[in-house]
Amino acid sequence: MTSQEKKFSRKLAPQSSARMVETIYGCKWSLTVYQLLNAGINRPGEMVRQVEGLSTKVLNQCLKRNVEFGILDKQVFNELPPRVEYQVTPFGEKFLAILEQLEALQMEIDGE
Amino acid sequence: MTSQEKKFSRKLAPQSSARMVETIYGCKWSLTVYQLLNAGINRPGEMVRQVEGLSTKVLNQCLKRNVEFGILDKQVFNELPPRVEYQVTPFGEKFLAILEQLEALQMEIDGE
Repeated sequence: MTSQEKKFSRKLAPQSSARMVETIYGCKWSLTVYQLLNAGINRPGEMVRQVEGLSTKVLNQCLKRNVEFGILDKQVFNELPPRVEYQVTPFGEKFLAILEQLEALQMEIDGE
Repeated sequence: MTSQEKKFSRKLAPQSSARMVETIYGCKWSLTVYQLLNAGINRPGEMVRQVEGLSTKVLNQCLKRNVEFGILDKQVFNELPPRVEYQVTPFGEKFLAILEQLEALQMEIDGE
């Protein structure tokens, strides 16, 4: 033991959750998708119809990434024609709550 | 107006607050400094004494950046020798609350 004991060591950043924020903000349509889901629009076809500039291909990439992160859950209903719906998971709700707070903070910054 | 009116347009990410998260997590010692402040250690000299591997120069860069973001506030007391203390601003408290939630989310990811 040295004469002066060090009580603190370097605290690391939470890598995965921080990367989630970066990736989702980097993903052009995620925030729009969350708005749609919040408005009860949870089928991909309807999403594309409702959003200016959103293509099926790009939407599917965005949805897939969100499912991989565990933010969204994909449900496939065995109907004819097959019905696919997305919903926010309980984990996703927590993540979205953080994004909302970042948005509120942004408004404080902008309002200065 | 087209036959199918688009009701949603692309929602943008909150640039400044998202960049704050990235910058702070990229800043090697910020999280440690918040821990120190939380433990009542708010003078730079004492911080350096308490933390393994932290130099005065690097600490000052870290503190400066946090002051620029409005997360920390620097107080200089007109004493001999001059006393300098840092504290978390009300804005900073909100930002730190977001970081704490990202950390909690990280624990959920790790716990899977």
